[in-house]
Amino acid sequence: MIIIGEKINGAIPSVAEAISQRDVEFIKDLAKSQADAGANFIDVCASTDVSVELDTMKWLIDLVQEVTDTPIAVDSPSAEICAAAIKFCNKPGLVNSVSLEGNKIDVVFPVIAGTKWECVALLCDDTGIPKSGEQRMEVFATIMERAKEFNIDPSRLHIDPLVEMLCTSEDGISTVLDVIRKIKAQYPRIHVTGGASNISFNLPARKFVNQAFLVLAMGAGMDSAIINPLHKHMMGLIYATQALKGDDEYCMEYINGYRAGLYGPVK
Amino acid sequence: MIIIGEKINGAIPSVAEAISQRDVEFIKDLAKSQADAGANFIDVCASTDVSVELDTMKWLIDLVQEVTDTPIAVDSPSAEICAAAIKFCNKPGLVNSVSLEGNKIDVVFPVIAGTKWECVALLCDDTGIPKSGEQRMEVFATIMERAKEFNIDPSRLHIDPLVEMLCTSEDGISTVLDVIRKIKAQYPRIHVTGGASNISFNLPARKFVNQAFLVLAMGAGMDSAIINPLHKHMMGLIYATQALKGDDEYCMEYINGYRAGLYGPVK
Repeated sequence: MIIIGEKINGAIPSVAEAISQRDVEFIKDLAKSQADAGANFIDVCASTDVSVELDTMKWLIDLVQEVTDTPIAVDSPSAEICAAAIKFCNKPGLVNSVSLEGNKIDVVFPVIAGTKWECVALLCDDTGIPKSGEQRMEVFATIMERAKEFNIDPSRLHIDPLVEMLCTSEDGISTVLDVIRKIKAQYPRIHVTGGASNISFNLPARKFVNQAFLVLAMGAGMDSAIINPLHKHMMGLIYATQALKGDDEYCMEYINGYRAGLYGPVK
Repeated sequence: MIIIGEKINGAIPSVAEAISQRDVEFIKDLAKSQADAGANFIDVCASTDVSVELDTMKWLIDLVQEVTDTPIAVDSPSAEICAAAIKFCNKPGLVNSVSLEGNKIDVVFPVIAGTKWECVALLCDDTGIPKSGEQRMEVFATIMERAKEFNIDPSRLHIDPLVEMLCTSEDGISTVLDVIRKIKAQYPRIHVTGGASNISFNLPARKFVNQAFLVLAMGAGMDSAIINPLHKHMMGLIYATQALKGDDEYCMEYINGYRAGLYGPVK
């Protein structure tokens, strides 16, 4: 499972405060603790006014790179900011994200073509999030055509099927699980990713819905997630689900993760 | 989801102690608390020497029925004890269990034929637990033939595919999930059940494996489980998974379960 650590995000009030106060230690701690907890990428999202976004991204990325070698996920609603932030990074990371919205792909794909950068691609376009599974698969097919144009191998893509909130869904998550299965069947080396918390919007005790969602999505083929790696219960379920899927021989990753204190109470 | 509350079992040391001391209040509390937590059946297993097992079952069943109307699951390795314990019950419950081992079916099915009693059937025979999915489906087919002989509708059967421990499995739980899907495809009204803790034998932090297992098994079609309904995290995941499967319109059961305090911290 590829863990994209989500905690350095200016949309989180404590992080916004740290950004405005230029609190170096706070940001470094967030980076280090997520890397130590097993994050494969450290997501960096400024969520500031666009006029200072790129400067803020640089400040954040520099701090992360001072404390960890874990690659960066450059995260912005602006494809231009993502493309520009790539050059602050010491090693290839992850662009978060493109979609068929506007010219995002035309801005990002040329920059990462011929590199080892990976890229999150959301299954939406200028009309928003497609309602049916078929429509999402059409968006997916177009994204794959564009990736092929730039010779970007499926193994460098993390497809986010965009999960809508459960409380207004008519079929639970069966459409999304179906889309995940189809994507992995077509491109076995591709990654399927997603956040684990939109799903539970407007519901009580959201953690249960988030956790059960991630386990079911992993069961269908999701192998990448944008989550908080410091959440030990979620991480325990992720390690357990990997083992249950048969992707962890003799449960060694599960057992070693436990010994390293990455999840659960170490008794 | 059908919850079979597992806590009144003489194999649990505190329950064995309560049985030997004839501690009436302890047993009543266990029955009441499981019923209040949403159990659909209260499992009663004496786990005593066979010479006193039936008397002990009667004592336990009488106590349970003093405090709750929730039906009983009569649980014994002996089919004769199960069949005999049925008559202590005020209303139809669940026999736990038969299999193709010995003459279990011949002892139990005639007794529950023409009643509303339900029955757990384990997918094993005199040779033990079949290794392959195909062999389990053969055992299943024979059980269904026997059920038909006695006119026992599939909706009265809870098939337990018998999950082996994960640490020695070569394909995780994919064989079991496959068996679950096939059973539900053949007989949509049948129930698929199981314990949630054998799977994690010999592993650390077993709760993560048990929880992820139950979510994945529910995703494949398991709709009955022999668990501790007082475990609020497990119950939260069960309610969440039901909603994610699209089996809980507008998440009303999830929301009401939360309001009733059946899972999670009530904030």
